[in-house]
Amino acid sequence: MPQLVLIRHGQSAWNLENRFTGWWDVDVTEKGAEEARAAGRLMLEKGLDFDQCFTSVQTRAIKTLHLALEEMGRLWLPVEKDWRLNERHYGGLTGLDKAETAAKHGADQVHVWRRSFDVPPPPLEPGSAWDLSTDRRYAGIAVPDTESLKDTIARVLPYWDARIAPELKAGRRVLISAHGNSLRALVKHLSNIPDDEITGLEIPTGQPIVYELDDALVATDRYYLSER
Amino acid sequence: MPQLVLIRHGQSAWNLENRFTGWWDVDVTEKGAEEARAAGRLMLEKGLDFDQCFTSVQTRAIKTLHLALEEMGRLWLPVEKDWRLNERHYGGLTGLDKAETAAKHGADQVHVWRRSFDVPPPPLEPGSAWDLSTDRRYAGIAVPDTESLKDTIARVLPYWDARIAPELKAGRRVLISAHGNSLRALVKHLSNIPDDEITGLEIPTGQPIVYELDDALVATDRYYLSER
Repeated sequence: MPQLVLIRHGQSAWNLENRFTGWWDVDVTEKGAEEARAAGRLMLEKGLDFDQCFTSVQTRAIKTLHLALEEMGRLWLPVEKDWRLNERHYGGLTGLDKAETAAKHGADQVHVWRRSFDVPPPPLEPGSAWDLSTDRRYAGIAVPDTESLKDTIARVLPYWDARIAPELKAGRRVLISAHGNSLRALVKHLSNIPDDEITGLEIPTGQPIVYELDDALVATDRYYLSER
Repeated sequence: MPQLVLIRHGQSAWNLENRFTGWWDVDVTEKGAEEARAAGRLMLEKGLDFDQCFTSVQTRAIKTLHLALEEMGRLWLPVEKDWRLNERHYGGLTGLDKAETAAKHGADQVHVWRRSFDVPPPPLEPGSAWDLSTDRRYAGIAVPDTESLKDTIARVLPYWDARIAPELKAGRRVLISAHGNSLRALVKHLSNIPDDEITGLEIPTGQPIVYELDDALVATDRYYLSER
């Protein structure tokens, strides 16, 4: 039976400050690092093991994966990193905290951007300090200037189909360390969650989410590992 | 011009205790971790950058790579891990410190095993506490029960030819984090060092060694980055 575990990166510096992060490459806090280690210890205790890992190209997800794997004695597992597992790009909201965003755009509008399925925030302004279009890690990639959750799903799912699903179908146990919205994309797909519900689904940091799948990769169960 | 950097893992717990380690999966010490970070900072300061990384499946080399990459802001680089970059397998000497080995086998004999090119130490005894033949990371691999340096070279070079050399020939800048003897194998090959000299060549921990290569991957220069 294919086995898949999803984990959202541990607390980042900007989670803590309530700032829109998106593609900006913010590190985990010490609390976030400890969340990652605790997740690794929990997976070890519960007897979980893996054959292949996937993560984004963002430091907070990569470090979360490394710290968890280290606790499991599994640093040697193969890890594939891909931008398509990155967090949703928050466009012009990047770097703003809740108060700044509400002052600039109004709390109602911010709520729409946060919670709507297909309305992206305003694009990042050209020349913005948060512009990553010339970052070497994205060479050859059309870096978005904003994304809705729908846009995020549109680049996560082709990666799932091309790279992750084949591993699971080949019987390999997969661990994915990623972000709130790239994981929402996967949960929506696997658990068949409607557009208007997925935006409200909170994915806690550092909590391994276990998917039991049938051979066609249809979910038969989904649970937090800490609750079993 | 292809660019290659080699780095031996930072000090491990058994380096410190002068015990033969080989394939046993000993972690770096805090000093070793700091050596790795310092190597990353040095590479960053000197303007080195990479496209592809390689390491063994041993924790001390993987962590050295991760710590160095983190200092460089390059955790997102692709990393391939392979057992063929592992340390030389020290057979029946694994786990013994210098005094124990000398007491058991005589100092002269130990010198021969340490310094000869093609005389392996006695094999690991069946049922030894240091036996890794059932370790999951080596599934499908004929785990050696001892290796001479010649044996080590015989599994490092096919990996170099198959996986590393093609990256360099394609113009990608390569960083390899590995071990005293797997790196000796590469240095012997690249710098054309005779059998009776390579065993005496010391590779210091945590010191990036830069190779300048021509398009045929013949070395035109080799130096410690700290000396330039």
